[in-house]
Amino acid sequence: MTADDQQERLDAQWVTGFVDGEGCFHVSINRIPKMSTGWQVFPEFRVVQHERNQVVLEELQKFFSAGKVVVNHASRKELRIRRIGDLRKVVCFFRQHPLKTKKREDMEIFEQILEMMDRREHLTVEGLTKIANLCWAMNRKVKPRFLESSETICQKSH
Amino acid sequence: MTADDQQERLDAQWVTGFVDGEGCFHVSINRIPKMSTGWQVFPEFRVVQHERNQVVLEELQKFFSAGKVVVNHASRKELRIRRIGDLRKVVCFFRQHPLKTKKREDMEIFEQILEMMDRREHLTVEGLTKIANLCWAMNRKVKPRFLESSETICQKSH
Repeated sequence: MTADDQQERLDAQWVTGFVDGEGCFHVSINRIPKMSTGWQVFPEFRVVQHERNQVVLEELQKFFSAGKVVVNHASRKELRIRRIGDLRKVVCFFRQHPLKTKKREDMEIFEQILEMMDRREHLTVEGLTKIANLCWAMNRKVKPRFLESSETICQKSH
Repeated sequence: MTADDQQERLDAQWVTGFVDGEGCFHVSINRIPKMSTGWQVFPEFRVVQHERNQVVLEELQKFFSAGKVVVNHASRKELRIRRIGDLRKVVCFFRQHPLKTKKREDMEIFEQILEMMDRREHLTVEGLTKIANLCWAMNRKVKPRFLESSETICQKSH
C-alpha cells in the first residue's frame, strides 16, 4: 500500500465506532425447495445510510475491499457484504477491533454461524435448527420462519 | 491524567465514528413569553441508544466530561449535553476530529449558532430570525415555529 492509499483509508477506530452505531450483522434462513434441506442460510453484513452519505459507504467498501453499495429503500443506500470470504474478513477485522456496544454479541453469533457453515453444518436439519436459534438470539424478537415451519416440527418429532 | 484513566478513555476516532452514526446536533427555539424576545434558543447535543448500551453512553459522558445520561423514551437512553460551555468543548473536539458524514455540516451550523449566542445575537429578533433559518437548514424539513409565528411576521413588517 502506498502512502497515498493510506491517507485515503478510513481509520480503523472510526470504522468500529461507525459500525457500532450503524452496522448490522444479519442472517436469514430462506425457504429454497430445491436445496437438500429446503432452506438456505444467508448471512450478510450491512451498513445503511441516507443517500447523502453514499461517499462514506463507498469509503467503507474500499476499506474492507468488499461488498457493493446499492439502494436499500427510497433515499437510503446500503453497503452490503455477502460473499462468505469477505464476511470472514469483516469478522476478522472486528476481532482485532472489538465493538463497544452490544452489537459485539451479534458479531460473535454471526462468526459462530459462519464457522458452522465452514463445517457444512447448515446442510443438516440439526445444524439448521441450531443456526435458527442463534439467529433468533441475534436478531431479537423475530423468530425465524424455519423454526415455525411444520416441516421442522415434523422432522424434530422423528 | 493517569495511565489507568487513559486506558479507560474511548479512542477519539471511535467517538467520531459513533457520533457520525448516532449523534445529533439540535437547536430548538422555544416560546418563553417572559424572555425579552419571547423566545429561547436551546442548543443540545444528544446520543441516543437502547438501554442495553447505557455503559457506552456513560463512557462518552466521561470522554467529554459533560452531560447526563437520562431516559429518552421507553427503553431508550440518551447522553444529553446542554451547558453552553460543555457544548463548546464538544464542538472543539469535532473541529479537531472531523465527522465524515453530512453530519459535519450540522455540526458547523451548530457551531455558528453557538458563536451567535456568544455575541448575544439571539436576544434580538433579527438574530433570532437568522438562527431560526440556520436551524431549519440543520434539522431539515421542520420549519421552526418561531418562523411561522405571526409575531415574527408582524415584527418583520415594521
